[in-house]
Amino acid sequence: MEGVAIVGAGQTRYGDFPDLSIKEMFLEAYQEMLKSVDKGLDPDVIEAAYVGTIGSGGFQLGQAAPLLTGYVGLPHIPAVRVENACASGGFALLEAIHAVASGRYQVVLAAGIEKMRDVSAGKTKYWLGVSGDTEYERLAGLTFAGIYATIARRYMEEYGMKKEHLSMVAVKNHRHGVHNPKAQFRREIDIETAVKAPNVAYPLNLFDCCSTTDGAAVVLVVNARIARRFTDSPVEIIGFGAASDHLAIQDRENITGLLAASEAARQAYSQAGVSPQDIDLAEVHDCFTIAEILAYEDLGFCPRGHGYKILEEGQTGLGGRIPVNVSGGLKSKGHPLGATGIGQAYEVFKQLRGQADKPARQVPNAEIALSHNVGGSGGTAVVCIYKKGGQ
Amino acid sequence: MEGVAIVGAGQTRYGDFPDLSIKEMFLEAYQEMLKSVDKGLDPDVIEAAYVGTIGSGGFQLGQAAPLLTGYVGLPHIPAVRVENACASGGFALLEAIHAVASGRYQVVLAAGIEKMRDVSAGKTKYWLGVSGDTEYERLAGLTFAGIYATIARRYMEEYGMKKEHLSMVAVKNHRHGVHNPKAQFRREIDIETAVKAPNVAYPLNLFDCCSTTDGAAVVLVVNARIARRFTDSPVEIIGFGAASDHLAIQDRENITGLLAASEAARQAYSQAGVSPQDIDLAEVHDCFTIAEILAYEDLGFCPRGHGYKILEEGQTGLGGRIPVNVSGGLKSKGHPLGATGIGQAYEVFKQLRGQADKPARQVPNAEIALSHNVGGSGGTAVVCIYKKGGQ
Repeated sequence: MEGVAIVGAGQTRYGDFPDLSIKEMFLEAYQEMLKSVDKGLDPDVIEAAYVGTIGSGGFQLGQAAPLLTGYVGLPHIPAVRVENACASGGFALLEAIHAVASGRYQVVLAAGIEKMRDVSAGKTKYWLGVSGDTEYERLAGLTFAGIYATIARRYMEEYGMKKEHLSMVAVKNHRHGVHNPKAQFRREIDIETAVKAPNVAYPLNLFDCCSTTDGAAVVLVVNARIARRFTDSPVEIIGFGAASDHLAIQDRENITGLLAASEAARQAYSQAGVSPQDIDLAEVHDCFTIAEILAYEDLGFCPRGHGYKILEEGQTGLGGRIPVNVSGGLKSKGHPLGATGIGQAYEVFKQLRGQADKPARQVPNAEIALSHNVGGSGGTAVVCIYKKGGQ
Repeated sequence: MEGVAIVGAGQTRYGDFPDLSIKEMFLEAYQEMLKSVDKGLDPDVIEAAYVGTIGSGGFQLGQAAPLLTGYVGLPHIPAVRVENACASGGFALLEAIHAVASGRYQVVLAAGIEKMRDVSAGKTKYWLGVSGDTEYERLAGLTFAGIYATIARRYMEEYGMKKEHLSMVAVKNHRHGVHNPKAQFRREIDIETAVKAPNVAYPLNLFDCCSTTDGAAVVLVVNARIARRFTDSPVEIIGFGAASDHLAIQDRENITGLLAASEAARQAYSQAGVSPQDIDLAEVHDCFTIAEILAYEDLGFCPRGHGYKILEEGQTGLGGRIPVNVSGGLKSKGHPLGATGIGQAYEVFKQLRGQADKPARQVPNAEIALSHNVGGSGGTAVVCIYKKGGQ
């Protein structure tokens, strides 16, 4: 396989943008990506594009990928939509990696986009619901909040975690997000506010759930051998893995971990030749607070049942042993479904180059990072491991 | 790049199956694929799956890929949905090819599925509409029949084709489809019936338009170096190409050819090292009869403006110089959107192994074949070239 690197990245602000179409949002992220390429980028060298998206703005849009690439001036490159619910962005990145690793292409766009705020609440709920198991979950009335609440209750039962620990995830990620100018919610919350927020599905309350968000992100994936044509500071992708699990949680052997994520992580660590102890920072899929705690364990940052303990000890906050979601995560940065996996790669790209927008968000001397993107309640997952390229 | 081959293929009948769910249809195609692998296949060796689909049965289903692979007993392999409107199957095949060509995987499923007959006509029309340019076409009332009718009118004007030539495509493909036990419409039509059918969008009438269809198809894509573990008669994929074009036909320089298709063909021929004269049979995307005539030209089977002439001369019928759509094509076999591109590969696999279901449909001594799968009105296209593996 050919080596793969990221040499450019762009992202819109995440939030509520009723006056921007999906085309305009994609263009904004694309243009920031272009500017981010240190030695300049002639768009003519871009050979293909992968776009992760679920709904693409209020209606299910076929052929969204060439529609978007055409709008930014790349009407003829092969462009394809990749979808795996909330892991659509991560899988778009993975397909871009495969395409470059195969030697077929040298320069490929990986992008993600979602416009959720223009859509009625009922339709958004429907969208989200159809990413679970329709027969056994959605039609039985089980929403994703309900699924993750079930998981959280079981985890509390097995490992002695308190509801307050869930709130600590929200508090931490909001504290991080304050330093991210592109985050949807840039304000700190205190633990009391978080704990006492209105219930959604016990034990999850308002602050345990991520929001609906508009956003787009784009990264430029190239053959590692030509990365230095574009920048002296590429970010290499040294490991990647992906796996699936039964969509319906009733079919899983265990619900206090996501098998798809731990299997994807195993593949990525093995390929990269690194261990969890080598990871300097991680962007993980905290769609609900419990999901971040499971991620710590699925990624091997701590033993099973210890996730809430390393959180409580501050190991996963900025300044801790392994800062998680310094971008603010899905919780504070926002979760524009298809964009999320690419937005994680965007954050990693900036962090490993020492270019976080605010010094307060920068993880000092970070060299190896990880992203973890989950579809639905763990039906699919993608894990990538990145390394700062030498000068 | 690693070499790639197909060693197994399965397909449901195409038609109207109200009592089969998408899971059951997928299983049926998967099981035929398993049986088709001459030396047997242990499903445990399958490492990943790519599934092309647009709607997946009446509603837009997120994470359809792992839902389907989980149902057939492969719950943990990475499975991802690939979507490019009616070219979704072709792009799923292409992504499977990239994944194997990269060396990442050795054995990968490429599949396609659509269930269109359970859906209200309005919703089907909506689905199809959103695969065009929503702003400039769908919301202006331009359906795909209208778009292809516009293309056909322009083609008639430029090249002197008569409306009767369009009907000849339908007559030919229905004649072929009679010999395909899996075709949706297994009856011949005469030219008079075809010409006098009720108008849809002039010059296209009922018999110029393909139908809505339920169907699924699966092929097994493996590294060519291990193909003989599975069969002594693999079918190698020796060339593949993909490209895009502006979705809205108003933005194109020319509408009497599909630039995405001719560019995809150029790439595939170049990689395969063969020319159009070497192709023994082709499965092309005849969603409307005019589309097949454009395909002849985009694929280089004849010069521009000569497509209807080689049709009239019988060059593209069974027994002719280059038989096109011996399966019956989208017109007679049916067009279950996401399944179509994979169904083309299924037909090619059978033909190159001399295993067409009926001798009357078998192209004798075929060694090199081509498939041509188009998204929407040419917003995207995939072309693959296949070669019969030596004994």
